[in-house]
Amino acid sequence: MPASDRIRDHAGQGATTVAAHRARRRLRADQARQLADLLRHQLLTDGFPDGTLPHESALAADYRASRNTVRQALDLLRAEGLVERLPGVGTVVVGQKYPHGLDRLMGLAETLHEHGRVTNEVRTMGPAPAPVPVAERLRIPPGTDVLYIERLRRLNGLPLSLDLTYIPLDIGTALLGADLENTDVFRLLETITGRRLGHAEITLEAVNADAHSATVLEAPRGAAVLMLERLTHLADGRPVDLEFIRFRGDRITMSGLLHRSL
Amino acid sequence: MPASDRIRDHAGQGATTVAAHRARRRLRADQARQLADLLRHQLLTDGFPDGTLPHESALAADYRASRNTVRQALDLLRAEGLVERLPGVGTVVVGQKYPHGLDRLMGLAETLHEHGRVTNEVRTMGPAPAPVPVAERLRIPPGTDVLYIERLRRLNGLPLSLDLTYIPLDIGTALLGADLENTDVFRLLETITGRRLGHAEITLEAVNADAHSATVLEAPRGAAVLMLERLTHLADGRPVDLEFIRFRGDRITMSGLLHRSL
Repeated sequence: MPASDRIRDHAGQGATTVAAHRARRRLRADQARQLADLLRHQLLTDGFPDGTLPHESALAADYRASRNTVRQALDLLRAEGLVERLPGVGTVVVGQKYPHGLDRLMGLAETLHEHGRVTNEVRTMGPAPAPVPVAERLRIPPGTDVLYIERLRRLNGLPLSLDLTYIPLDIGTALLGADLENTDVFRLLETITGRRLGHAEITLEAVNADAHSATVLEAPRGAAVLMLERLTHLADGRPVDLEFIRFRGDRITMSGLLHRSL
Repeated sequence: MPASDRIRDHAGQGATTVAAHRARRRLRADQARQLADLLRHQLLTDGFPDGTLPHESALAADYRASRNTVRQALDLLRAEGLVERLPGVGTVVVGQKYPHGLDRLMGLAETLHEHGRVTNEVRTMGPAPAPVPVAERLRIPPGTDVLYIERLRRLNGLPLSLDLTYIPLDIGTALLGADLENTDVFRLLETITGRRLGHAEITLEAVNADAHSATVLEAPRGAAVLMLERLTHLADGRPVDLEFIRFRGDRITMSGLLHRSL
């Protein structure tokens, strides 16, 4: 008999048992989430330098949790692709997330240089008429050609992000012959214009990858993606680079410092 | 015969046709993503004030895209829960995302006050021994009791985030009798201590919601979640509030300004 029927059939003992069972299950799930969040922080900050997590019983003692809760927490981290269970070895760290700064405007190769080499596969590049919302944000007349670039960006060969970029053509034309495979657009923009970049307005969202984006990023369909929209300006205030970036959620974190007073 | 077999069987015409067909399909998917990103920006910035998107043919003309591409772009936005198609009406805006600032340290009710009322369902609250990573970050001896709070936060009744919070007990005790249902912890911390908050270290990630978190947030299993870890300090530098926050990806965006030079 399903649990729900039992509740309907017996107002007394049966329902209490089912309710107690549910409460226990909910409590364990809550405790597992709580533990998983603490372990996730350790994972992201290299808290297990030998790449292996302590034994379940040690984790249970350290976190005053039951073995079942520990197992459930490790299951959550495994579902996120952060750890794997190896028979005879234990739970090992498999996924690495790379920190992208939220404090300073930096290109991907700049920000990740100590983690490896960023390479860019240019999927599309060429002039195209700017749709109204692009033209407005780049402060050019609608329909004016802009340079459109689509790149799949990799760190040490692994897909990290899919970037769609719009650049006004007076600056963009010089990008056509540049080494986009190996150089951040930010660096090229500063070289071409002879000016420094100033600031960028950014918006971050978490979205589920659509089937096509997932395929390009070599991620499962529906995988969580950290979506960054960024409008970058030269130091003189001119907007020169509108980007829509899909980062694989399992490969990147964004970190920064917020202040209470401005 | 499946397309893959046709390629193997005919080196000539058949393969070319299949390749051309695939290239067209990839191109359309790329163009749909490109268009969807532009429309998403419009949706998030209230670019369709009457709540209805222009007709497909108007969008096709405006964005120089084919009707098929427009349809595919609208499908992507529908899958994200941002728009819906109503027979006889067209495509209407259904999901609203609320902007959370990345420029200043603010509580949820503070940051969203113009969008409605934030209420908090306290799921768990009580003292618990601090696990080592919590104790280290709050700079208290491991095993010392901290106040642990778990809240489901709603905006105008809709689930927005699930927050796990750790607060040192000397401050936390005063929170036990406070109106946590209707007040940000940030505000309570400033009232209790008589001091201003100073800064917070934050980390943002995109993760797929596990089954239990999804249920609590009333979101589909696997829904993209914007995960925020935040360690908040008083103005004198003392860490007083460690939080793990899961925002529903379809209800929140984080916006801010980055500068090239610090």
